[in-house]
Amino acid sequence: MSELSTTDVIVIGAGVSGLTAARRLAQAGRSVVVIEAGDRVGGRTMNLDIADGVITEGGGQWVGPGQDRVLSLLDELGLETFKTHVDGKSIYHRRGRSTRYDGLIPPLKPLALADFAQLQLRLERMARTVPVDAPWTARRARSWDATTFGHWLDANATTAEAKEMFTIGFSVTNAEDPHSTSLLVQLARLRGSGGIDHALNITDGAQESRVVGGTVRIAERLAEDLGDAVVLDSPVVEIAHDADGVLVRSARVDLRADRVIVAMSPADAARIRVTPDLPPRRVMLQRSWSSGAESKLFAVYDRPFWREEGLSGQAVSDLPVAKYVVDNSPPDAGVGILLTFLGPAGPDASLDDPAARRSAFLDDLTVLFGAQAANPTAYLEKDWTHEPWISGCVGSRPPGSLTRYTDADRRPVGRIHWAGTETATINQGYLDGAVRAGERAAQEALPSRRPTVSV
Amino acid sequence: MSELSTTDVIVIGAGVSGLTAARRLAQAGRSVVVIEAGDRVGGRTMNLDIADGVITEGGGQWVGPGQDRVLSLLDELGLETFKTHVDGKSIYHRRGRSTRYDGLIPPLKPLALADFAQLQLRLERMARTVPVDAPWTARRARSWDATTFGHWLDANATTAEAKEMFTIGFSVTNAEDPHSTSLLVQLARLRGSGGIDHALNITDGAQESRVVGGTVRIAERLAEDLGDAVVLDSPVVEIAHDADGVLVRSARVDLRADRVIVAMSPADAARIRVTPDLPPRRVMLQRSWSSGAESKLFAVYDRPFWREEGLSGQAVSDLPVAKYVVDNSPPDAGVGILLTFLGPAGPDASLDDPAARRSAFLDDLTVLFGAQAANPTAYLEKDWTHEPWISGCVGSRPPGSLTRYTDADRRPVGRIHWAGTETATINQGYLDGAVRAGERAAQEALPSRRPTVSV
Repeated sequence: MSELSTTDVIVIGAGVSGLTAARRLAQAGRSVVVIEAGDRVGGRTMNLDIADGVITEGGGQWVGPGQDRVLSLLDELGLETFKTHVDGKSIYHRRGRSTRYDGLIPPLKPLALADFAQLQLRLERMARTVPVDAPWTARRARSWDATTFGHWLDANATTAEAKEMFTIGFSVTNAEDPHSTSLLVQLARLRGSGGIDHALNITDGAQESRVVGGTVRIAERLAEDLGDAVVLDSPVVEIAHDADGVLVRSARVDLRADRVIVAMSPADAARIRVTPDLPPRRVMLQRSWSSGAESKLFAVYDRPFWREEGLSGQAVSDLPVAKYVVDNSPPDAGVGILLTFLGPAGPDASLDDPAARRSAFLDDLTVLFGAQAANPTAYLEKDWTHEPWISGCVGSRPPGSLTRYTDADRRPVGRIHWAGTETATINQGYLDGAVRAGERAAQEALPSRRPTVSV
Repeated sequence: MSELSTTDVIVIGAGVSGLTAARRLAQAGRSVVVIEAGDRVGGRTMNLDIADGVITEGGGQWVGPGQDRVLSLLDELGLETFKTHVDGKSIYHRRGRSTRYDGLIPPLKPLALADFAQLQLRLERMARTVPVDAPWTARRARSWDATTFGHWLDANATTAEAKEMFTIGFSVTNAEDPHSTSLLVQLARLRGSGGIDHALNITDGAQESRVVGGTVRIAERLAEDLGDAVVLDSPVVEIAHDADGVLVRSARVDLRADRVIVAMSPADAARIRVTPDLPPRRVMLQRSWSSGAESKLFAVYDRPFWREEGLSGQAVSDLPVAKYVVDNSPPDAGVGILLTFLGPAGPDASLDDPAARRSAFLDDLTVLFGAQAANPTAYLEKDWTHEPWISGCVGSRPPGSLTRYTDADRRPVGRIHWAGTETATINQGYLDGAVRAGERAAQEALPSRRPTVSV
């Protein structure tokens, strides 16, 4: 190929982070091309069709207060939000007994509530010592990064009930087992978001609102404005870079540019060959990234029948599948949807079979919401472990990585810049982190101008 | 492609484990084809050329007592071994002072020696409670898998010197940072090999002997005997399997068979698309596998000059690069070679530059072995982080994986069997583990016969 097209900046990955970066660059007068491996935009946001015009969301679906950059982008794109349904009593089910409660806090036993409070206090106190931009410089960084959040919880919780509550909350919001995730990484995330209440809550928390039409509308709107600059179905196989520019080779297009932004999770970035070799600590960061595993399970009913009984649809339980349930009905409540999250596969393979999963989920919903829950009009699943171009949910670094590879997640390598919510220091793992990372990467790449000499 | 060739068993990966499996199957009268992505056999064994007929070894290079299966295979293949050079005094260098010593144990301060002994005693006592075939069933499995070996060491060592000694020994033998590796995984490995002395020692230990011509001769001899059945340069892109058989698609050949043995590290196996999807816990095991990062650095001299001064060439130090040095000269001592291992990249990027690495290594050797060490006739490196088809050294599972995904490393999935030293319960990570895993996988696949119905 002797003649290659040239652009100022190439963005790899048409998720929210990459498309936001592209928009900001285009707004600043740069030419930009977005190359995406898959056949759609949106990355880890996507809609699942239930019926004509009725959807539910397979990926990241919530926004909340403090997530200023995504809220601002929604506004800019003319997208509207609606509140997650919370009216009514929620259900707390443990050891065979259901209790209904109002408000945010499940009715744990008094000792467990006190235990939960002391754990929360200590975690937030520890998190305050972790610098959000450089967690590896915290005084106890090495020790906290060498162990897991689950190990800390086992050592510091005095009641099984409080520990269960943390485990459920953590597993749902992080798509990870607390026993495999670095304590330091979790403290840094707490520091970089709104703390534990914010992470767990709907009202005033990270699950407060949803986007009308689904969060995938963000990527779709961004892509509409970028038009032909978005190339789908074109996995990138190589980035070659030197002092003069970059050359990106993909299935459908080879392109030269001044800079490239890789807007993929570190785990997925490892699929791309880079010439010359990336620094060892970047390679190792990518290889050791632990993608999260989580499925979303949806039971769809002709209406949100639980609301008629004064229930919110929210539940917290010790049941096998439905550990956390939330009303995920569309804004018009034209159908009723109950959603749960199924965490990483465990040694028990009994839920590996789709029919077994469905049946176990509906059994749990029946325990929580009565016989009507047993017969949904539809059942849907979105499993993020089997996507062709996405190696799972956000996930995080395993123990040892944050103190060893420090800022290799976002430190530019020559003309290569890194986006993706994994590289955000504020609201990492959230849609807001994706937007922030995209805007930060665009800012880094702004000096870009077409190379004046051929590369 | 309408007509596809058929064989009893396909083996993917022409490392020691895959080729051993293929040999055992061929010996049992099965037809077998080995498909390899790269342009050579041997996997993580390979020779580096120094001069005409003079080589050093870039990958796994040692065998020792207790490694019965690889020793037996060497015998079967007519390959000879020679003892790692140990005659003379070794050097222990710490805080600017060098001490010479005889025998196996560096002259730590008495308190540190006692501390080392108590740590060793406790670790081996803990390891004895870990069932070698099912470490996840140990009574304290969950707790040990939720933390790291480094964290345990920090909590239980009373002297910095003993901790340093464990860290050096561990990093060299495991190509990993103790602060990122599951304590349970390490206890299981201790249990499945000969204990700590065996792991660290040359004489009577895992580094006792080398193979004349290099350990890559094992794979080369195995491949010679298999002849045309080994297909190189043919990355496998897909395994499709059902109750009747398997179909393997690779760059150069598509083949049907009764069974397939994947003889790759779990991290590398993730490159292959499997239809229908693998069980979630196998997918997650592959994705979360933490490949080790280690480079071998070699300084070559016209002769092993240190031997003339009564030195063995072995050294243990707190220097930046040469933390562990060993005489790696060929059996005829036609040249002298000093070898060190450089562990995973750290936050300090000063060694990322090849010239800086070379210079820092030679500085350290000069401190240890005098001015003659400063001017080698050749300098070689083998870095395992940048191989196209091998994602690093053996590595291990991060915290949480062993208790969560249990035997997903080796449990067959339909007609897919798993080999590779990572799947061995005895001598995992060693060449002996590779041979054992290959033989175990061959045994599993033995019932195979050509499918009688077309698949």
